[in-house]
Amino acid sequence: MSAKIENRQIRIAVIGGGACTAEQAGLAREVGAELARRDCIVITGGLGGVMAAACAGAKSQGGLTIGILPGSSAGGANEHVDVPIVTGLSHARNALVVRSCDAVIAVGGQYGTLSEIALSLAMGIPVVGLNSWDIAGVEPAQTPGEAVERALVLKAKR
Amino acid sequence: MSAKIENRQIRIAVIGGGACTAEQAGLAREVGAELARRDCIVITGGLGGVMAAACAGAKSQGGLTIGILPGSSAGGANEHVDVPIVTGLSHARNALVVRSCDAVIAVGGQYGTLSEIALSLAMGIPVVGLNSWDIAGVEPAQTPGEAVERALVLKAKR
Amino acid sequence: MSAKIENRQIRIAVIGGGACTAEQAGLAREVGAELARRDCIVITGGLGGVMAAACAGAKSQGGLTIGILPGSSAGGANEHVDVPIVTGLSHARNALVVRSCDAVIAVGGQYGTLSEIALSLAMGIPVVGLNSWDIAGVEPAQTPGEAVERALVLKAKR
Amino acid sequence: MSAKIENRQIRIAVIGGGACTAEQAGLAREVGAELARRDCIVITGGLGGVMAAACAGAKSQGGLTIGILPGSSAGGANEHVDVPIVTGLSHARNALVVRSCDAVIAVGGQYGTLSEIALSLAMGIPVVGLNSWDIAGVEPAQTPGEAVERALVLKAKR
Repeated sequence: MSAKIENRQIRIAVIGGGACTAEQAGLAREVGAELARRDCIVITGGLGGVMAAACAGAKSQGGLTIGILPGSSAGGANEHVDVPIVTGLSHARNALVVRSCDAVIAVGGQYGTLSEIALSLAMGIPVVGLNSWDIAGVEPAQTPGEAVERALVLKAKR
Repeated sequence: MSAKIENRQIRIAVIGGGACTAEQAGLAREVGAELARRDCIVITGGLGGVMAAACAGAKSQGGLTIGILPGSSAGGANEHVDVPIVTGLSHARNALVVRSCDAVIAVGGQYGTLSEIALSLAMGIPVVGLNSWDIAGVEPAQTPGEAVERALVLKAKR
Repeated sequence: MSAKIENRQIRIAVIGGGACTAEQAGLAREVGAELARRDCIVITGGLGGVMAAACAGAKSQGGLTIGILPGSSAGGANEHVDVPIVTGLSHARNALVVRSCDAVIAVGGQYGTLSEIALSLAMGIPVVGLNSWDIAGVEPAQTPGEAVERALVLKAKR
Repeated sequence: MSAKIENRQIRIAVIGGGACTAEQAGLAREVGAELARRDCIVITGGLGGVMAAACAGAKSQGGLTIGILPGSSAGGANEHVDVPIVTGLSHARNALVVRSCDAVIAVGGQYGTLSEIALSLAMGIPVVGLNSWDIAGVEPAQTPGEAVERALVLKAKR
């Protein structure tokens, strides 16, 4: 589905594992869909798992999706990424995913996700967690809708 | 003006100085406008001069503009950037601007632009020059229209 | 004190807050000293707090210290850094500090340190914690000597 | 040969192709040797060709060599690198090689070297060229000894 974009919409990162459970994928998809309904741009690391599910959800509602890839080719992006940003930076790209956003929503995740949560908090960017790491400073949410709502409230307070 | 985006449009970088002459700004603006007419996404380094002119041209035709910024805040982007990517990488971000694109159009430019031309050629990404550095491997063009046409032909050959 | 260097000595990162308690500084200093006694190169993020204390400890025993700085000038390095590496990458430099090492010792630390711990574990680089974050995968140690011993054992197993 | 290091010696980058002619290798080796005789630390991109030759020259005189690698493993460093810095940044590491130094000496080189020359000049770091790119702002030298002498004079003027 094509996306209609206005200048400088709110940008929210959805972070989580490149491999994930079906439940996490369902949560991420609904987070992406709700972000698109609210006219937010969805930024992810561009790969599979939670990243692909969030992008698929956003596209189902006509949203715009940006994938900030660690590798050296756009070919690594999942099919729901509208605009691949090809960094060639390997793990150092994690800092760019969160720095480019107004707030971050973490769904599940392993060590890579934990690094992105920690980098967000180090930079003062708000983080909402959905079945994710229990780290002081992360705002927990129970549902995708609540996660998006919390992220937008925290963004507005910055 | 809002932009209507399809999945995976062609991405072309427009590179050049953060400060530029009125003539260079005019060329860059027309390059950006022509890229948008041809349904290309315009990627720049997000700052002023040639970068801002190319973005303004693209927006005048309903195009989508991405700014890959060297600094640590989206506030550094010019007003015609739709989606700021905030790298915090300083000069190392030059590699990302060109790596994210299918082809590069250089308008004028100083040493920063020369570094982007050289990085493109090192990565095998085609470069078209419009009143820019005369380096072996750069395809010269005489007009904005010719520059866009050459970039799209070179992209198709990759 | 000058350092005598052989080719390819073991490299150990000491990570922790740019501001720290006197107790943490004492631990970091002793970690750095013990690493130098064992002919390891000490790599840090090059700033103050735990980083400066670890470098000071290493220099007290004739070790070599490398500081991988986030900023754009060597002037930001603490005085005990022998060789500043000036990245200009801001927070993205955290990935380089740990990637360049055979093992990592974390002393205390805030969110920046947590990001480095998480990046190490994501890359498969062993992490020993001394009064630091309690994250699955981090090997706890009780004393500086034990931390160094554990890091060298874990490095040998890779 | 082991190296004896004092705190904060002058750091000079030697840049050039990962593949090079025998003549270029001879020039790079002598540049590295002369830098070590003058108590400078030699920083390179850590790979083969000019980089390996400069490191070998420095080691022949008891110098210290740092290799700032583009890949994700220390295993990519040439055997004459004392301390590998593993960036995982691909081409974006070029900015770090020159930013970490007081001056740059270019020996021959292709597009990657040109990008490093341009980044140096964009950052205000002096560049001396030995059979390298003829770019305004690069100081030409005729011999390795003259290249080192020029680099140290230009460094002193900064």
